[in-house]
Amino acid sequence: MPRTLVRDLRDHLDQTVTVCGWVNALRLQRKMQFVILRDPTGMVQITHKRGGEGDELEQAIEALTTESAVVITGRVVDNPIVKLGGLEIVPERVEVVGKAEASLPIDEKSGMEHRLDWRFLDIRLRPSSRLLFDVQTTFEAGLREYAYAEGFTEMHTPKLMGTASESGAEVFKLGYFGGDAYLAQSPQFYKQMAVAAGIERVFEIGPVFRAEPSFTSRHATEFTGVDVEMAWIDDVEDVMAFEERMLAHAIAKVADVHGEAIREHYGVDLKVPTVPFPRLTMAEAQEILRARGWDPAGEKEDLDPEGERAISAHIAEQTGHEFVFITHYPASIRPFYHMRPKDRPDLTLSFDLLWKGLEVTTGAQREHRYDVLCKQAAEKGLDTAPMQDYMNIFRFGTPPHGGLGMGLGRLLVAMLNLDSIREATFLFRGPNRLTP
Amino acid sequence: MPRTLVRDLRDHLDQTVTVCGWVNALRLQRKMQFVILRDPTGMVQITHKRGGEGDELEQAIEALTTESAVVITGRVVDNPIVKLGGLEIVPERVEVVGKAEASLPIDEKSGMEHRLDWRFLDIRLRPSSRLLFDVQTTFEAGLREYAYAEGFTEMHTPKLMGTASESGAEVFKLGYFGGDAYLAQSPQFYKQMAVAAGIERVFEIGPVFRAEPSFTSRHATEFTGVDVEMAWIDDVEDVMAFEERMLAHAIAKVADVHGEAIREHYGVDLKVPTVPFPRLTMAEAQEILRARGWDPAGEKEDLDPEGERAISAHIAEQTGHEFVFITHYPASIRPFYHMRPKDRPDLTLSFDLLWKGLEVTTGAQREHRYDVLCKQAAEKGLDTAPMQDYMNIFRFGTPPHGGLGMGLGRLLVAMLNLDSIREATFLFRGPNRLTP
Repeated sequence: MPRTLVRDLRDHLDQTVTVCGWVNALRLQRKMQFVILRDPTGMVQITHKRGGEGDELEQAIEALTTESAVVITGRVVDNPIVKLGGLEIVPERVEVVGKAEASLPIDEKSGMEHRLDWRFLDIRLRPSSRLLFDVQTTFEAGLREYAYAEGFTEMHTPKLMGTASESGAEVFKLGYFGGDAYLAQSPQFYKQMAVAAGIERVFEIGPVFRAEPSFTSRHATEFTGVDVEMAWIDDVEDVMAFEERMLAHAIAKVADVHGEAIREHYGVDLKVPTVPFPRLTMAEAQEILRARGWDPAGEKEDLDPEGERAISAHIAEQTGHEFVFITHYPASIRPFYHMRPKDRPDLTLSFDLLWKGLEVTTGAQREHRYDVLCKQAAEKGLDTAPMQDYMNIFRFGTPPHGGLGMGLGRLLVAMLNLDSIREATFLFRGPNRLTP
Repeated sequence: MPRTLVRDLRDHLDQTVTVCGWVNALRLQRKMQFVILRDPTGMVQITHKRGGEGDELEQAIEALTTESAVVITGRVVDNPIVKLGGLEIVPERVEVVGKAEASLPIDEKSGMEHRLDWRFLDIRLRPSSRLLFDVQTTFEAGLREYAYAEGFTEMHTPKLMGTASESGAEVFKLGYFGGDAYLAQSPQFYKQMAVAAGIERVFEIGPVFRAEPSFTSRHATEFTGVDVEMAWIDDVEDVMAFEERMLAHAIAKVADVHGEAIREHYGVDLKVPTVPFPRLTMAEAQEILRARGWDPAGEKEDLDPEGERAISAHIAEQTGHEFVFITHYPASIRPFYHMRPKDRPDLTLSFDLLWKGLEVTTGAQREHRYDVLCKQAAEKGLDTAPMQDYMNIFRFGTPPHGGLGMGLGRLLVAMLNLDSIREATFLFRGPNRLTP
C-alpha cells in the first residue's frame, strides 16, 4: 500500500492507510498500547487495545523500541481528545523494518561534542536541526535562481592543485602518484581563469579547505563556499550591488517558505533586507569604533570579531539594518591580487560584508593588468613562479573583473542566530574532528 | 556608457554605443582598418578609415593585438555588405583594458595536452567549449529542478574523512594536523547518514576523488558527482524510475534551451529519452552479447567497455533507445552494502545505467539491516572497525533506502558525443595532470 504522510491523514478519515516513520515514543499501559510515530511531516498516535494471549499485534507493539523504523497499516479514526491532530490510527499491521537498540547514545542533555559524534541521531531527534537543511536548500536555490537570471554560468573548479598557490601556510598537502598535491583553499584563481576563458559571469557552490588550527565558533577546516566572479565591471561597487541583491532575493525566498518555522524553532524573525545595504569605509568604521572605546591603543589595521560586532551594533542602532559592507581595506592585510585605487596604493578596492556582526563575505575588484599584478606580488615578497598558470591568464587579454566568496555555514549562523558553525554544518570538520 | 551586447546592436542603429570584448581578428589595410570584436553573444566589425598623421584612433587600432580585451565606443551603422549582421561600428574611442601578447601559445593545430595546458585560451577560442559550460549549467539546473519538485534536500557532505572507508586502494591520503585524513571517493556513506538522520530524500552535486592510475578517456582523479539517496523505497526499481525521470526532465530542458546550438557546434541531435528506459539483467545482457561473439571464453562477470558499447548498440537497434539499465550485478563485483535478492545471495539489487555505450551511473538498494550488513562485510573479508561510524547508523533504526551516483562529465561526454572526459571538464585532473 502506498505511504500516507502524517500531515495528510485527515484526508483519509475512516480509511486504511500505511504510515512510515520512526517510533517517537511508546506508552504501554495495562489495557492500552500507544505508539507515537514520527515522519518528516508530523506525528500521529497509534492506539491498540490489548487483546491478550494470541494477540500478535499486542506482541509486535510490546517488542518495539523507540527510534525503530516502522511501517504501520491501520484505520484512521477521528478522536477529538487526541492531542496530535485530533485523530489516531487503529493498527492492523505493525512491521519493524529497522530495529533500534534499546538505549540511544545521546539525549537532550548531551553536550555539543557528544552530539556531533552521533550527528545523525542529533539531527533526527531535533526538528530544528532538520529544518536547517531545508532552509539551506531553499537559500541555495534562491542564490542560484538569482545568478541564473543574471546570466551566470555554474562552474566546478578543481579542488586538487599542483602548487600551494597564494598562501602555503593554510593549505593541506597530499600524496599524489609519487608527487604532491594541495587542496584548494578557495576557487579564487580558477574562477578568474573562467573569466579569462570568456565565461564572463561565473559562480560555484562547493567545498573549500583551510588547514587553520582555529577552534572558534566561526572556523572549520572544510566548509561550503559560495563564490562569484564577474567580468566587465566598472567598479567594485558592481560586485557589492550584485551581492546585496542576490542575498535579498534568497533571504526573501527563505522567509516566504520557512519564515514561520524559523520563528517557531529558532525564535528568529527573519527580516528581508532592503537594498542598498549600508556601506562604511574601513577608516570610517574605525573612527566610529574608536569613539566607542574600541582598540584604545590605536594599533589595529583590521577589525577583530569584537570590532565587527560593535560596528554592526552601531549600524543597527543608526539604520535598523542587519548588514553592513566595510570597504577599502588596507593593502597590507589584503592579498596581492586585490586592485588598489589609483591615488591610494595603501588601500584596496575590496570589502567585507558583516551580517549581525559576523563576517560572511570577502570580495574585491581584481587587478587584471599583468604588470601591475607582478609589481604588487613583488611588493608582498611573493614568488610568482609557483603560480605561473595563474599569472599567465593576465598575459593574453583579461577584462576588468571582480568577485566575492561567502561562507554558507556562516550565513546560516547569522540567519538563524546559531551559537556555532558546528550547528550549521551537516558533518563538521575541525582540527580535532574528522568523524563521523 | 553602459555596455551593449553584440546581439543587440541592431536595436541601436545610428546610435552611439559601447561594446566590450576580445579582438577576434584585425585587418589593417592601406586605407582602412577593420577590427572584429567578439563578445559572448557574437561578433561585430569595427571599421575605421585612416586619417593619417595625428589620427589617434588610427594609432590605437594599429597597436591592437588579437585577443586583447577592449572597450570600443562608436556609432552603429547599417551596412548590408558586412557579413556580420549587416552592420558595423564606426569607432570614436578604442581602449585596451587588457593587452594580449602578440603571439598566442595555442592555435587550431595544437594537440589535446597542449590545449589543456592553456585551457583558458582553448575555451575562449572555441565557441563549442564555451557552449559546454552553458549546457552543463542548464543540465544541472534541470536535475535540481526535478529533485526539488520531488521533495529532495540538497546536502554538502564532507570530503575530508578520518578513515579510508570502503576501499583504501583508490583513496588519497593527506596530512592533517599531525595525523592523516583521506579524501572521499564518493558521498556514499554520508548520504546514507543523512537518510538515517531523517532527511529522507537527499542529493548532492560535488567533487569526488579517485586515486586511480587510469589514463582512459573516461577516467579522472577528480570529477563532479551527482549523488542521490532516497528512503522508504519499495524496491531498487523506485531508484531507477526516479533516475530516468530526472534525466528525461533535465535533457528536455537542455534540448529546449540549447538544442539548436548543440546541433550547430557538436553535430548532435539531442534526443529527449522516453521513459521507462529499457532494462536488462546482467544475465540477459551477457546472453545477448555472447550470441554476438563477446567474451568467447565465457570468463567475464562484468561488462567491459567493449561489452557496454555492444549492448547499447543492440538496444539502439532493437528499440531505438540511447539508454539501458543493466540490473542484478553479481555480488562478487559489487560493494558489501548492496542489498541482495531474498533468494539469490549471489546477486545484488543494483544497476548501472549506460548512455550510448558509456557507463554513466551506478546505483543500488542498500542493505539497511545491521546484522545482514555485518554478515555481508565479513563475507567480503572486510574489517568494519575503521568504518564504525558508518555501521552505527544501522543500529538505531534505518528505513529501507537506495540511491545512485552519476558522473557529470560522463553524462556530458555521452550527450555531446565528446572524445574524452577532458573536453567535458573545466580543468581536468588525472594521474599526470594537476595543472593549470
